[in-house]
Amino acid sequence: MISIIMGSKSDLPIMEQAANFLKELEIDYELTVISAHRTPERMFEFAKNAKIRGVKVIIAGAGGAAHLPGMVASCTTLPVVGVPILSSNSIDGWDSILSILQMPSGIPVATVALNGGTNAGILAAKIVGISNEEVAKKLEQYQQNLHSKVMDSIDDIKKVHPNFFDQ
Amino acid sequence: MISIIMGSKSDLPIMEQAANFLKELEIDYELTVISAHRTPERMFEFAKNAKIRGVKVIIAGAGGAAHLPGMVASCTTLPVVGVPILSSNSIDGWDSILSILQMPSGIPVATVALNGGTNAGILAAKIVGISNEEVAKKLEQYQQNLHSKVMDSIDDIKKVHPNFFDQ
Amino acid sequence: MISIIMGSKSDLPIMEQAANFLKELEIDYELTVISAHRTPERMFEFAKNAKIRGVKVIIAGAGGAAHLPGMVASCTTLPVVGVPILSSNSIDGWDSILSILQMPSGIPVATVALNGGTNAGILAAKIVGISNEEVAKKLEQYQQNLHSKVMDSIDDIKKVHPNFFDQ
Amino acid sequence: MISIIMGSKSDLPIMEQAANFLKELEIDYELTVISAHRTPERMFEFAKNAKIRGVKVIIAGAGGAAHLPGMVASCTTLPVVGVPILSSNSIDGWDSILSILQMPSGIPVATVALNGGTNAGILAAKIVGISNEEVAKKLEQYQQNLHSKVMDSIDDIKKVHPNFFDQ
Amino acid sequence: MISIIMGSKSDLPIMEQAANFLKELEIDYELTVISAHRTPERMFEFAKNAKIRGVKVIIAGAGGAAHLPGMVASCTTLPVVGVPILSSNSIDGWDSILSILQMPSGIPVATVALNGGTNAGILAAKIVGISNEEVAKKLEQYQQNLHSKVMDSIDDIKKVHPNFFDQ
Amino acid sequence: MISIIMGSKSDLPIMEQAANFLKELEIDYELTVISAHRTPERMFEFAKNAKIRGVKVIIAGAGGAAHLPGMVASCTTLPVVGVPILSSNSIDGWDSILSILQMPSGIPVATVALNGGTNAGILAAKIVGISNEEVAKKLEQYQQNLHSKVMDSIDDIKKVHPNFFDQ
Amino acid sequence: MISIIMGSKSDLPIMEQAANFLKELEIDYELTVISAHRTPERMFEFAKNAKIRGVKVIIAGAGGAAHLPGMVASCTTLPVVGVPILSSNSIDGWDSILSILQMPSGIPVATVALNGGTNAGILAAKIVGISNEEVAKKLEQYQQNLHSKVMDSIDDIKKVHPNFFDQ
Amino acid sequence: MISIIMGSKSDLPIMEQAANFLKELEIDYELTVISAHRTPERMFEFAKNAKIRGVKVIIAGAGGAAHLPGMVASCTTLPVVGVPILSSNSIDGWDSILSILQMPSGIPVATVALNGGTNAGILAAKIVGISNEEVAKKLEQYQQNLHSKVMDSIDDIKKVHPNFFDQ
Repeated sequence: MISIIMGSKSDLPIMEQAANFLKELEIDYELTVISAHRTPERMFEFAKNAKIRGVKVIIAGAGGAAHLPGMVASCTTLPVVGVPILSSNSIDGWDSILSILQMPSGIPVATVALNGGTNAGILAAKIVGISNEEVAKKLEQYQQNLHSKVMDSIDDIKKVHPNFFDQ
Repeated sequence: MISIIMGSKSDLPIMEQAANFLKELEIDYELTVISAHRTPERMFEFAKNAKIRGVKVIIAGAGGAAHLPGMVASCTTLPVVGVPILSSNSIDGWDSILSILQMPSGIPVATVALNGGTNAGILAAKIVGISNEEVAKKLEQYQQNLHSKVMDSIDDIKKVHPNFFDQ
Repeated sequence: MISIIMGSKSDLPIMEQAANFLKELEIDYELTVISAHRTPERMFEFAKNAKIRGVKVIIAGAGGAAHLPGMVASCTTLPVVGVPILSSNSIDGWDSILSILQMPSGIPVATVALNGGTNAGILAAKIVGISNEEVAKKLEQYQQNLHSKVMDSIDDIKKVHPNFFDQ
Repeated sequence: MISIIMGSKSDLPIMEQAANFLKELEIDYELTVISAHRTPERMFEFAKNAKIRGVKVIIAGAGGAAHLPGMVASCTTLPVVGVPILSSNSIDGWDSILSILQMPSGIPVATVALNGGTNAGILAAKIVGISNEEVAKKLEQYQQNLHSKVMDSIDDIKKVHPNFFDQ
Repeated sequence: MISIIMGSKSDLPIMEQAANFLKELEIDYELTVISAHRTPERMFEFAKNAKIRGVKVIIAGAGGAAHLPGMVASCTTLPVVGVPILSSNSIDGWDSILSILQMPSGIPVATVALNGGTNAGILAAKIVGISNEEVAKKLEQYQQNLHSKVMDSIDDIKKVHPNFFDQ
Repeated sequence: MISIIMGSKSDLPIMEQAANFLKELEIDYELTVISAHRTPERMFEFAKNAKIRGVKVIIAGAGGAAHLPGMVASCTTLPVVGVPILSSNSIDGWDSILSILQMPSGIPVATVALNGGTNAGILAAKIVGISNEEVAKKLEQYQQNLHSKVMDSIDDIKKVHPNFFDQ
Repeated sequence: MISIIMGSKSDLPIMEQAANFLKELEIDYELTVISAHRTPERMFEFAKNAKIRGVKVIIAGAGGAAHLPGMVASCTTLPVVGVPILSSNSIDGWDSILSILQMPSGIPVATVALNGGTNAGILAAKIVGISNEEVAKKLEQYQQNLHSKVMDSIDDIKKVHPNFFDQ
Repeated sequence: MISIIMGSKSDLPIMEQAANFLKELEIDYELTVISAHRTPERMFEFAKNAKIRGVKVIIAGAGGAAHLPGMVASCTTLPVVGVPILSSNSIDGWDSILSILQMPSGIPVATVALNGGTNAGILAAKIVGISNEEVAKKLEQYQQNLHSKVMDSIDDIKKVHPNFFDQ
């Protein structure tokens, strides 16, 4: 199971993208709010027990001084995917990115792009996929679909601009 | 008592500046290493018991993705002074500054300048000084000394450059 | 008493957050405009007399090249909490943050997050709370409330997403 | 097996940190140079065949306009850990970080801190550890060791500074 | 012929500016979508065959971690003009700029300003113009027109503000 | 006379602020568009003849890669006031600021804040005022008015918040 | 007379450049240390009396949260030239630049480049030169000399590289 | 012929890289100093006559507020390659990059990486190569050599680290 947590309910629109991707691939997930700063004990309890509860990967999103992903990573051997979020109290996202990415040696967080909820879901699936061939195949299919959508847009543009490459 | 903590022994040269200032003003302090990421339980135990142990102000310094000041602040009602440190794994100090300064609403950290160990000590003394007239007087004396040192440098420079203001 | 000052009337919506928090905790405050650049003498008079007038903590907010917090700090032994404000003439807030945070050794300003009016109020209360157990208790209650609000949001989200942690 | 690749031989001191960590945990690895810009075909061949060759996780490091991690990620379903490197042609590391981190939706790279070679190794081990209890246990032991090293530094500092917390 | 490619259909409004400029100068062009990350093989096939197909200059635009211009440049001896695009997943454009501009030694990309679609078209025309006097003449005419438009705006402003220079 | 020039008609709303200030102080001015890049010869002719035409100070505003202020400064001994403008093609104003401010040794530009049209007018008046007591007096009056406006806002705020300082 | 002031004796090497330039042009100057934060009353007294003492232009340099130039400007109608200094407590100079440059409307500071001591001296001379033809002529001569030094370097380079332009 | 110009003799070590590359490919070049700010007339004369003198591409490098590439581009229809240089008066290169890259619509500069002298030479050769098959072939050979050097480094590393990909 993949566990998706976020620092505030306001992060839900971004973090639901991860949930939606996992649902699409039929990977089990759970999703809740855990605030590093407002519910520190909840965070610790969560992080310490995640592995025992059967969680495989933790996806943690937060904005501003985003301590949730790194703090959770410090209390578990599970891989933690960090999602920097451009929240209302963030300076163009730089604070969220740097406080998730720049973890000290010993405690990595697998950081994805600003507001990269979908990418966090995909990364978690890729991690699961290394020991689950079914998931790996679905990911391959997903990448195929990305390719197909590009090819469709090419056909649209062909109607208005010359294109000698795709003749 | 003022409690000075830091994320790593490598932060000591900066954080000792705070200790030195407090010693100079004869304010009791303690100083140790508490790593948010490598000793999270130690951090929680420290933060939750600080007030009971008689700590009045906590000074916390860390570099990179610096979670220590904010996490400690989340577990205590004591004021926490945060010192961003330009550690070897920091990007010009921006990561340290932003992950200490940009705390969400509800959990402030009193952030001082990058590598501002001395200023953290002074700020802690100012906080103590609001209910301790003796400390307040020593701070006044300290500010007088800053003034005097500037005046001395003026005399030096007068020897090489004209100065019609201080005639 | 806590004194809340700001560089311009346009900073009021942010700085009123501090006042509102203090009112909520029944801590006395005053609030006015003092411009470092347009009313420098007023600023000096204010800073020099604040302690004598019974002020315990000064909260100072300003935008752009924000000199108010640092200049006030240079004329008093009281702790000064600085609030960088994203004013219309600010470059994403960087100018406000750096001109408040990066004070030279000797004259600290306790800087909070960009637009962190509420956090400035909380920090001032924490400072007062070190010698006022009643305030400290109210702060503990406040932190409890933050926790409760998170728990409420968890219940909401549980209705739409699986959550095996809070079963 | 973990595959460690880098854009240039000059990245070796950082990327060897990942290799050293994996060796310490007795996890199989390979390590070589693959330049996205100077050997694009080699990169494609590598990325497409990695899974078939038994690679579980790819760690890719590069500096400047660092395209290697993202381009490899676009040709495989394996998780790719990206290491931004502060190379001689980098602007304080910002170019390396942003060109690895800010991947478009669909193609995530698990980015670690600037020059975070060791953290890349740990993250790869954590990923392997979700389906390999032996590796997970070694990671737990590693985190214990981090904790112990902090505790040792505390004893050192105790000799020069008062510490009432660890009495 | 000039080939205009972009990483996503959403880049079309910017990249069409290049096409429009070339049309105005009656320079042949083609325009399509080629995604480095979603259609890597298409990208390679395009880059390797561009010269043989008679392409003279490639204009490539992309946002975020923008690998398209640099990757195409690595597979061809043709000059590649890179257009950083402020896409929805970009951090104020810095990621796009740095991942296009900061190419390693050996593989240059001729980078233009953020969202500089028109400038990319002009630059391509300037490149063609060094061996095509007709194009060079049209460019001279274009620069004359820029001059004329400024002169027209001067006349407008003269009606409301004194101007002793243009008397 | 003060000469106000700008790189594009779109800069007029900012640059008119300077004109309005000078009109208020009854200082002669002229205002027109001079584009460094689209009308380079016009720029040179302007810069070289400004002193002879009786211009005392040149105010030059531009956005993006803003070369106008610096290039004009290179062709005259008159002081040049530079106004960085947040134009549509600017990256948060950083490009405009840096390309005006960071002039090499030998050719200074007196740079004011981003979009600081009014401040440019005031600075020009201050420069004129050093040899024109009438202008100096008007500036003193202007600074008095700034002070008065602050005092008025204080009265407004007094109605809603306690203020023991201005009793 | 030009008055050169700086926030700290450590700024002397940069600020002496201004003095040296003025000496070279035989323009009277004075130079001293005035710290906004450590000697605020000295600063006010200086700023208020500068005009009466016969000062024409004030050059003020400071590093970090550099309040000196702006605060002096708020107490005088004289033009103030601000020199951002890359002091030891500065973050790559950004704090110094922004806290000098980004002054609010009403109180401009004529900011020059980071560490631009010489340019500050030249700018002050240009300001004096608008009503002093002798100074203006010396500035013209100075600009001629800059030109000559470039021409000399051209001759040097000609010996090692072909140059068909200067034949 | 390719014309290489730079704003100051101190830029020579970077700009010689371009000359060296062109020499290696037996492409004619000239190289000299042209300062936009210290020799503006020389710059204009150069830019206006470059095409007539048989120049095909202009490579222009400068540091700080780097106006040379953009100003030259404004006076010619030739393509101008801009090289941002990390000179002693530059803020980490950001000023040089932005003042070269962020040209307004109508006047593009083909910007390469910070200190990218070699890349500027390669880009100029690529531009020449579109109508000169001999140059195009040499560029192909050059890219082959880049590939070979990578392959050599692979053999070196193989001696110390396992590599199952290149078996």
